[in-house]
Amino acid sequence: MLTVNAYAAPSATGALIPTTIERRDVGPHDVLIEIKFAGICHSDIHTVRGDWGPQGYPLAPGHEIAGIVTEIGPEVTRHKVGDRVGVGCMVNSCGECANCVAGEEQYCLKGNTGTYGAVDRDGTITQGGYSTHVVVTENFVVRIPEGLDLDVAAPLLCAGITTYSPLRHWGAGPGKNVAVIGLGGLGHMAVKLAHAMGATVTVLSQSLKKQEDGLRLGADHYRATSDETTFADLAGSFDLIINTVSAAIDINAYLQLLALDGALVNVGAPPEPLPVQVFSLIGGRRSFAGSAIGGIRETQEMLDFCAEHGLGAEIEVIPAGKINEAYERVLASDVRYRFVIDAATF
Amino acid sequence: MLTVNAYAAPSATGALIPTTIERRDVGPHDVLIEIKFAGICHSDIHTVRGDWGPQGYPLAPGHEIAGIVTEIGPEVTRHKVGDRVGVGCMVNSCGECANCVAGEEQYCLKGNTGTYGAVDRDGTITQGGYSTHVVVTENFVVRIPEGLDLDVAAPLLCAGITTYSPLRHWGAGPGKNVAVIGLGGLGHMAVKLAHAMGATVTVLSQSLKKQEDGLRLGADHYRATSDETTFADLAGSFDLIINTVSAAIDINAYLQLLALDGALVNVGAPPEPLPVQVFSLIGGRRSFAGSAIGGIRETQEMLDFCAEHGLGAEIEVIPAGKINEAYERVLASDVRYRFVIDAATF
Repeated sequence: MLTVNAYAAPSATGALIPTTIERRDVGPHDVLIEIKFAGICHSDIHTVRGDWGPQGYPLAPGHEIAGIVTEIGPEVTRHKVGDRVGVGCMVNSCGECANCVAGEEQYCLKGNTGTYGAVDRDGTITQGGYSTHVVVTENFVVRIPEGLDLDVAAPLLCAGITTYSPLRHWGAGPGKNVAVIGLGGLGHMAVKLAHAMGATVTVLSQSLKKQEDGLRLGADHYRATSDETTFADLAGSFDLIINTVSAAIDINAYLQLLALDGALVNVGAPPEPLPVQVFSLIGGRRSFAGSAIGGIRETQEMLDFCAEHGLGAEIEVIPAGKINEAYERVLASDVRYRFVIDAATF
Repeated sequence: MLTVNAYAAPSATGALIPTTIERRDVGPHDVLIEIKFAGICHSDIHTVRGDWGPQGYPLAPGHEIAGIVTEIGPEVTRHKVGDRVGVGCMVNSCGECANCVAGEEQYCLKGNTGTYGAVDRDGTITQGGYSTHVVVTENFVVRIPEGLDLDVAAPLLCAGITTYSPLRHWGAGPGKNVAVIGLGGLGHMAVKLAHAMGATVTVLSQSLKKQEDGLRLGADHYRATSDETTFADLAGSFDLIINTVSAAIDINAYLQLLALDGALVNVGAPPEPLPVQVFSLIGGRRSFAGSAIGGIRETQEMLDFCAEHGLGAEIEVIPAGKINEAYERVLASDVRYRFVIDAATF
């Protein structure tokens, strides 16, 4: 057992504080990672605050982890000491169900094991990446290619794969019109990735406040959804809309923006149901769909793609002592576009 | 101008009565069809009763038309006198938009021209198939293959294509698990077609009342949705669910029945929006989609497929004088599975 420094929430309401957590001994198939950077995802906040259900405390969140392998178990073949690696939103799955066998571990039929706040195989509760070290089974550790700095790579492990996967699945590429709703942590990666895939990209944001950024990141068009002409002008024009906004939006207004056979894909979910006018779907064979992160194989593919295209997240590196302040800023959408914690400060 | 016998609704509330309607002169690209049979679709009732918006009256409904060509315009090349032909839910479209060019006239960006109750090119209101004759531009007339009797073919023009198109689009076939919600006019065709395509077919019906029929029509399984074990037993098991029920159902319960990448496709629409829990979609990359009839090319393909597989609708042929009684029985779900009017009685 390894005792390591971490930042953890002591309760659903308390600020995160420095503490120590335990990591299991490195097993035959395990990799010990010295964490260098950990991204702050909006989900971290929802989870530690109990918005998605009760948690055990103290809880260290963090599922955008980038670091260096410092020890491997005797049976490990995929990684070696010194490798630059990442860990995302899950650290295990059953490995045997149809979805796992298909490389879609995120949809494991027995439920994948979340990187934090989940019951691990040994009955302990997983602790996330706001920490100096983590032990993970090798199959859930991906390689970060040389071309990618670890700080800008960290957010790719959640924000990157969560947007890359649906863009690939629904065929974003040359000749396709892709819209991205919301230019935050996920949205800014969706824009970069869709642009790199060759699609024509439109950002649909509440205001034009971040327009300059959006165009710089690769968007071809930037439209304010507070402007009603936006919906009239863009009716029937998108093959794919990636909705990165978790709050409830007027989903029918956005469905009308889809072209024939278009899909609107939510990568986040509001707690309340969204009322869908079925006529919106029928009138154009449209789909309203959802997508969760991506499988391990696809996460590696995404990292390789980002390295090839020189894509990392736009980040603001902070020391651990500023996590609580960063949380407030995330909740206020005051970040461009991801906070990344320097793990040397844990 | 041709004056022909018909049955029409005099108002949104009045019973359908015998009357005469006008058909335009046969133009260069027109086909005059002597109607032999006209199916009664639930949409006919909704439309004449004004459920979907105000109508002009008198209105003769009917968009499941089978008959014989008795005259053709000088420029007609697709059909000749004596041909066995059908007309479905639309009689025209712009022919120029991207969707029309793609052969998806049902999604014409300018709106296709419905077979009844729509404004035709010449400004008149179209009148449907509850009539002895109809004049239709040749491109919206399809050939009924020799192997198909005209009475059982008539309902294929709406109920057949409405279910065939999504089954094809979403890949129903060997190795695929397809569920059909509701065993009515559309549902019974969905079962026959999905079975003929090689899929494993499950009917999801409120009760087991029609179980024997369902299995005879080609279903492999038949489950009652009033039995709660149905939803537990079938969780995550379907690649495709065709929802033929227009009433509001608990859509989230059905979405949970989809396997990874599964789609639930509505072919009818309740007037009120359906509340969709987005987590249901995200947890399995599921889609909630809609589909409207099919294009003309696909309608021909469907008829050829039905002839090849010996598939027609299950029908009860009635004289025109029983239309109003038939409407009451349709509303009471007391028909197995389609009323077809013998046009000789108009």
